[in-house]
Amino acid sequence: MPESTDTPHHRHLEHARAQVIELLSRQAIERDLLSRSENRKSDVVAQLVVRQHQAALAQRLMRFHPADIAFVLENLAPEAREMAWALVRGERRGAVLLEASDNVRRSLVESMAPEEISAVMRTLDSDDIADLVSSLPDEQRAAVLEHVDRADQAEVRSVLSFPEDSVGAMMDLDFIAVREDASLEAVQRLLRRKKPLPPHTNELIVVDRNNSLRGVLPLDRLLLEEPEDEVSKVMLPEPTFFYTDDRDRDAVDAFEKYDLISAPVVNLHRQVVGRITVDAVIDEINERAQSEGLRQVGLSEDDEDLFTSPVTSARKRWPWVALNLLTAFVASRVIDAFEPVIAQLVALATLMPIVASIGGNTGNQTMALVIRGLSLNQMGPQQLRKMLLREVLIAGINGTVWGSALGGVTFLLYHDWKLAGVIGSAMLLELLLAATAGLLIPVLLQRFGRDPIMGSSVMLTATTDSMGFFIFLGLASLILIP
Amino acid sequence: MPESTDTPHHRHLEHARAQVIELLSRQAIERDLLSRSENRKSDVVAQLVVRQHQAALAQRLMRFHPADIAFVLENLAPEAREMAWALVRGERRGAVLLEASDNVRRSLVESMAPEEISAVMRTLDSDDIADLVSSLPDEQRAAVLEHVDRADQAEVRSVLSFPEDSVGAMMDLDFIAVREDASLEAVQRLLRRKKPLPPHTNELIVVDRNNSLRGVLPLDRLLLEEPEDEVSKVMLPEPTFFYTDDRDRDAVDAFEKYDLISAPVVNLHRQVVGRITVDAVIDEINERAQSEGLRQVGLSEDDEDLFTSPVTSARKRWPWVALNLLTAFVASRVIDAFEPVIAQLVALATLMPIVASIGGNTGNQTMALVIRGLSLNQMGPQQLRKMLLREVLIAGINGTVWGSALGGVTFLLYHDWKLAGVIGSAMLLELLLAATAGLLIPVLLQRFGRDPIMGSSVMLTATTDSMGFFIFLGLASLILIP
Repeated sequence: MPESTDTPHHRHLEHARAQVIELLSRQAIERDLLSRSENRKSDVVAQLVVRQHQAALAQRLMRFHPADIAFVLENLAPEAREMAWALVRGERRGAVLLEASDNVRRSLVESMAPEEISAVMRTLDSDDIADLVSSLPDEQRAAVLEHVDRADQAEVRSVLSFPEDSVGAMMDLDFIAVREDASLEAVQRLLRRKKPLPPHTNELIVVDRNNSLRGVLPLDRLLLEEPEDEVSKVMLPEPTFFYTDDRDRDAVDAFEKYDLISAPVVNLHRQVVGRITVDAVIDEINERAQSEGLRQVGLSEDDEDLFTSPVTSARKRWPWVALNLLTAFVASRVIDAFEPVIAQLVALATLMPIVASIGGNTGNQTMALVIRGLSLNQMGPQQLRKMLLREVLIAGINGTVWGSALGGVTFLLYHDWKLAGVIGSAMLLELLLAATAGLLIPVLLQRFGRDPIMGSSVMLTATTDSMGFFIFLGLASLILIP
Repeated sequence: MPESTDTPHHRHLEHARAQVIELLSRQAIERDLLSRSENRKSDVVAQLVVRQHQAALAQRLMRFHPADIAFVLENLAPEAREMAWALVRGERRGAVLLEASDNVRRSLVESMAPEEISAVMRTLDSDDIADLVSSLPDEQRAAVLEHVDRADQAEVRSVLSFPEDSVGAMMDLDFIAVREDASLEAVQRLLRRKKPLPPHTNELIVVDRNNSLRGVLPLDRLLLEEPEDEVSKVMLPEPTFFYTDDRDRDAVDAFEKYDLISAPVVNLHRQVVGRITVDAVIDEINERAQSEGLRQVGLSEDDEDLFTSPVTSARKRWPWVALNLLTAFVASRVIDAFEPVIAQLVALATLMPIVASIGGNTGNQTMALVIRGLSLNQMGPQQLRKMLLREVLIAGINGTVWGSALGGVTFLLYHDWKLAGVIGSAMLLELLLAATAGLLIPVLLQRFGRDPIMGSSVMLTATTDSMGFFIFLGLASLILIP
């Protein structure tokens, strides 16, 4: 159900939120001072004032949307947050918890007694309870689950049993199903008894007597077609639907493509068990986008929140540190092979990281373009060829222009035409190679069934470093050393 | 209006799409062979067969959703794509163009005559036409605009006049407004005349006689409340709304937070001029996510599609290449300052890139976490402190463990305890510094009002490279050189 908000436009709202945050912070400090003061008499007055202020604040908070209350809580220091949480009325706490980030949610739940938790849960749907529960640390999970109402518990457990990346884990159990042989009038009567409808109900799900999916009935059709008509005549008979074990990715793609607001979810017998709504899809898209940056550097969402112990997180990063060390060692061995050359001309040691560094950054540019293309499903063989050609061409242009510049500066510093020529050509070659590697690494990872993003950036710099040193020192030993 | 799709479940659909793509590709080849063959008589028969096949394919394409037709077109070679496009019926071409990627869209529009374009446009709303037009290259834009119907042209131009990142450019002009003093019954009569409703109509917009926003009337309320009631009694009086000049980001945030499906857009006089729908918000979120990876390496979406000339793209990348060269030069000068040390012990040149490389990758990990936090609005002063502490701790653990390993391997290679100690300690110091830099760079960029992502990765490697060389060579010159 829509909540009444303090003021509907975000500019006013931002102001209102900032005000409340400030007031709450100030009060927490005042209360703290008060508790330390010695003078009994002034205490009573001051406490009255504080209580009055708090009543006013509770009033204002009540008019906030749960998402805005969550925002306020996230921007408060722990003591003020606790005080503010006490001002949120019991029946709204569940909604606020749902909107809060994992960190704040955990800190709030931590301080709650089991009975409080179960009271909060009572206002939520079982799939929302499952969401809440699954975001808690393992220790708390079981304890909280125990305090869920019996009736809900089975549903919650069934939602929790779906794999994390399945449609089942993402679905909403709260939907309205109607029979195909009912009349629109009968459906309207049914709805009047059930109102308010669950949020995001743009259509009713039509089932047969076995609860199998038959179609969907959009609300506007229900509203605008003749009341005597049968549902089966008016419904859309072939809606997009999902199985509980479909990947959540597929649901997201379908929502994006077909601009859906909700879609039915069925079990293996094609019986309707829930629905996916667009708000869950948006959350999923955001999560996917946020995890992308992490995956590129070899991190995973789950290992990296502020509540995981640093020792655990450190160990989770070990495979990548080890890989990184290994590849850096390979690059180091490449340099080692040219030790005699460097011993003869130490300037080579000074200049070699320039070539490697530019190669790494250029390769990363190409790779960012390829990863975007892959995530848009736009990387067919044709586009790949076109992009490779294009990136190599750009690398050629930039390598020539900036390679010459680098050569020029090198000449100014060392007064050695040959050295300038070597570094200029090395830069051109390195850029061509970096563009190729930046394109191939994610594409090959994907072709071999791997996540094209995971650790791609580590692998790329490994390649560009080794090759950069090899090209530069190799050219130098060919041309400079007699 | 919902389109009837070939089959509602994506697994079948994927199969059907793949089949059609293969058939189309094969036919394009057959037709090509036919046009080259000499035998007249067999031609006639073969042509008949081809025509029969094409009729069947046109039938199948007709049952596809426009988004799936667009998918098919994107996965065909140019000749086959042209043939397939000819099979798409005129009245569906507009919808397909809207769903296609910029590349395919341009290649299709390129081959169309002005009259064809105007015919295609006639089936679209003016805001969709604006979307299409704005994605075309400048040369084509004016030509296409001329062929738009007079009536639409003014609206299209007005939408095009809003800045690209404003709510105005994103809004939908197709909405239903009702007066607050009408009865629900009268509204229902009005809707019956107007059906089908515009897509994503979950609520009607309520206005007064000046067309000023008064509230919204959700369809379910219209359906379930008493027909004699006045709109003003049943409507939600304080809906979330946007001004045309609000940033699109604000709309996206509000949709995410309040789980909206649509929201009214008003001009400066608070008159309703359009609405934002959730499908546009999802497109916007996706675009934002895709541009993030590019911005990190200093690229921008607009300069990087396959239709921009490589020379232009190459030049657009120059500022970052230049910055990269400059910072690499600084790093090179750091090494230069230690030339005498390297001349004494060439192994230092061999080992120094290891330290720098590990620093770069570790810093990138921390930076990915911070960027995620910033984009989630979770980086208050408190969280920043907590994350810095955490990342430095992790760097300390990993620096100690893997620094010792690196020292061990170095000892095995060079049999020099001091050198092993130097590289181990340099790695520990470098990791601590890289974690700090990875946190500070995006945070400082944001504090100074810059995009915290743009080029952050270039700046980070610049820092970690220079400091890595300085720490390692500095320690070496202190400890190893008498």
